[in-house]
Amino acid sequence: MSTHLISRLTERLGSDRVVTDADVLAAHASDRAVFAPTGRPLALLRARTVEQVSTALAWAHEHRVPVVPQGARTGLSGGANAIDGALLLSVEGMDRILRIDPVEQIAVVEPGVINATLTRAAEEHGLTYLPDPSSWEISTIGGNVATNAGGLCCVKYGVTRDFVRGLQVVLADGRIMRTGRATAKGVAGYDLTALFVGSEGTLGVITEVTLALRPKPAPALTAAAYFGDVVEACQVVTEVMSSGVRPSLLELMDGPSLEVVSRLQDLGFPPGTDGLLICSSDDPDRQGTDLQTFARIAEAHGGEVVIAEDVQEAELLIQARRLVNPAHAALGTDLVDDVCVPRGRLVDLLRGVREIAARYDVLVTTAGHAGDGNMHPSVVFDASDPDQTERAQAAFGAIMQLGIDLGGTITGEHGVGRLKSAWLGRELDPAAMATQRAIKAALDPRGILNPGSVLSPAADDLH
Amino acid sequence: MSTHLISRLTERLGSDRVVTDADVLAAHASDRAVFAPTGRPLALLRARTVEQVSTALAWAHEHRVPVVPQGARTGLSGGANAIDGALLLSVEGMDRILRIDPVEQIAVVEPGVINATLTRAAEEHGLTYLPDPSSWEISTIGGNVATNAGGLCCVKYGVTRDFVRGLQVVLADGRIMRTGRATAKGVAGYDLTALFVGSEGTLGVITEVTLALRPKPAPALTAAAYFGDVVEACQVVTEVMSSGVRPSLLELMDGPSLEVVSRLQDLGFPPGTDGLLICSSDDPDRQGTDLQTFARIAEAHGGEVVIAEDVQEAELLIQARRLVNPAHAALGTDLVDDVCVPRGRLVDLLRGVREIAARYDVLVTTAGHAGDGNMHPSVVFDASDPDQTERAQAAFGAIMQLGIDLGGTITGEHGVGRLKSAWLGRELDPAAMATQRAIKAALDPRGILNPGSVLSPAADDLH
Repeated sequence: MSTHLISRLTERLGSDRVVTDADVLAAHASDRAVFAPTGRPLALLRARTVEQVSTALAWAHEHRVPVVPQGARTGLSGGANAIDGALLLSVEGMDRILRIDPVEQIAVVEPGVINATLTRAAEEHGLTYLPDPSSWEISTIGGNVATNAGGLCCVKYGVTRDFVRGLQVVLADGRIMRTGRATAKGVAGYDLTALFVGSEGTLGVITEVTLALRPKPAPALTAAAYFGDVVEACQVVTEVMSSGVRPSLLELMDGPSLEVVSRLQDLGFPPGTDGLLICSSDDPDRQGTDLQTFARIAEAHGGEVVIAEDVQEAELLIQARRLVNPAHAALGTDLVDDVCVPRGRLVDLLRGVREIAARYDVLVTTAGHAGDGNMHPSVVFDASDPDQTERAQAAFGAIMQLGIDLGGTITGEHGVGRLKSAWLGRELDPAAMATQRAIKAALDPRGILNPGSVLSPAADDLH
Repeated sequence: MSTHLISRLTERLGSDRVVTDADVLAAHASDRAVFAPTGRPLALLRARTVEQVSTALAWAHEHRVPVVPQGARTGLSGGANAIDGALLLSVEGMDRILRIDPVEQIAVVEPGVINATLTRAAEEHGLTYLPDPSSWEISTIGGNVATNAGGLCCVKYGVTRDFVRGLQVVLADGRIMRTGRATAKGVAGYDLTALFVGSEGTLGVITEVTLALRPKPAPALTAAAYFGDVVEACQVVTEVMSSGVRPSLLELMDGPSLEVVSRLQDLGFPPGTDGLLICSSDDPDRQGTDLQTFARIAEAHGGEVVIAEDVQEAELLIQARRLVNPAHAALGTDLVDDVCVPRGRLVDLLRGVREIAARYDVLVTTAGHAGDGNMHPSVVFDASDPDQTERAQAAFGAIMQLGIDLGGTITGEHGVGRLKSAWLGRELDPAAMATQRAIKAALDPRGILNPGSVLSPAADDLH
């Protein structure tokens, strides 16, 4: 049955594009999520053109074959994980920058372009592509759009959605559609662009993206503040964000995250540090006063402030934040949460996470984009220990529930994927869940597009 | 039949809320669009609570009664015009500001709040609500959201959509749903908020809006530049927008619009002026250099530049732009177009509009938000003259087609409504039109919500 199906696809696309080799399939079966379910795929299509994507989806629609769109598989929610019997539809090879237009300040790219590649190409025109997920050196624009990726600069510049002007999308049955516009404004019809951004491959496959570029900001100045109590750091975040300061980066690391980073590399944190804030400002006309205001507020809360003398020194300060993920990797497995709460509730989030770590007796480090209230509490554990693993998973869930209870969301920027789909009904009300499902059914009536991601089978929903 | 229907609604809501008086209905039958079709409504509901809206929609759904949501009826596309046999569902009386939170910088409001009322309330907290459609003193937040309204400050700050964090919406069958979030970021599920913003009452009725506020910008400095040829003014816009200048307002008026304003009031334009640019900058640290850059570019294109000495003088310069609508009203009827083109095509738009005015022998004045490429060519005519009226309508259509041909849109900020619904299929491709209709059918399966707005009956589509 499945061999027959595949041969039909191969007939249409050529055997060099369709791969069924077991090792290749295994290598493409997962993204970087931990514990998200992974199935056994039928085949991998390495698409190079929109026509190939269209042909594959028409075939999948006809034969009711599930399709999992994939880019670089750097996601953290299992949204690119294989499903039993699925076609893995990789657009990683559609990696051309089609156009950079300095007058309209837009770029038109294929989905497989790496974020950093686009950013550097834009910089040759004095422009830049601002959204900067931590994965920017390895993740693709298509994946960034499919998950509506965030990043460090969101606190000033917004998320991926804010930069997507238009899309080319292949619909579930293979039809090719354009959304959006090449203009700065436009309200002709429902905003299909915004609907597809963040839809995680469940409504269509993105084959081209028109993005807004911006003039490259000036080099940022950066300050750091060390606190004896992370609660003080949280209060500083709230005050800074209400003060008129417009940071281009405002990151928080709690005591446990500083501790694990110190094990990897001695960065000379003052003894007894329980919280570190890093604040940058890239506006040349006001970065001095921005950082002075930050320093004044931090010192009023007992912070010890260091202002970087130059860009190199600033990079050293930010380095601590970048070392969190490598530090986790060195210690074991980590379940990265992604809760976002109203800024005024950051204190409650950090306190609650500490309480959850104690209750389940697991290590939880918390770092993240404090200026947006978007934190990444990470449960670090030994996956070879079943008891510890069970406690880690329970703590991971408790942190999501805490985020919801604080008026926040289970995912600020990583997406729902297959990791959190059962949780969506805890955050959204029944009418919103029904509307989500109605839209999915309208655009993918046979349910072939990344089934189980974003929306779980209704029976699996947590209540 | 209809009396029986209405009595059922009155039983549920009380006769003080449901109005059937013919004069009242006639007074509520239209918004401010010219030539958009208007029908004879059944009744008007003056809703005060979300429960009343829910009850009314459940009733309408049960009996398949069309519903036209209304606010202040200041729209320009007939989206609030009555339909034969429809319930006019006015939320104008739901006009409470529920909450202003200076820490999270958000406001929660009912849909009937006037834009200017919210802006002033926010200013008491040192904040402001930025989107500023020209109608801001008379239009409601609900209508601004339903049309994704633009305005003068969009060139720097974006459109209504960029400020909507979340909504409460009553769905077609009366279910009440919340969308969005109270947090700065969030990617849990499809972005229903973005879908409802700009949906013009065709997918649900907005009953509460959570909006982002911002610190109130400093007073802007303003310059004007007069040109002997509007083409030069267009080229200045393109250069200014690529120069790194971040205007908070960049408006263009062409020769005919200056001429009609001069008939109303002598503002001392230099003789032979065929184009006026007005440029503001509200960033205190760079407004001086912003305006100097503007002046340098304008002078290089033969512009005569005036820099306002203070805010009062700036207001005088902007006054010319504000007088365009009154000047039209004094002359006759005007069909206001709303095309948005890529900035680099502004020159072609202005040239094309001039050619269309000559071809159809009608007066067309063009003013608008040049920094966004969003212009309002207006066909001014004597509606009592059938021949002139016919030529005016033909010119109006030709201008929309010109916008599409230049890679732009038929509506940058006014919406599609019933005025342009037959045109939507000229701008969107067949797959996008089918997707728009699929979403409408999924959320409003009985087609009761503002039928004919945004999406016309398929048979009416222009091809």
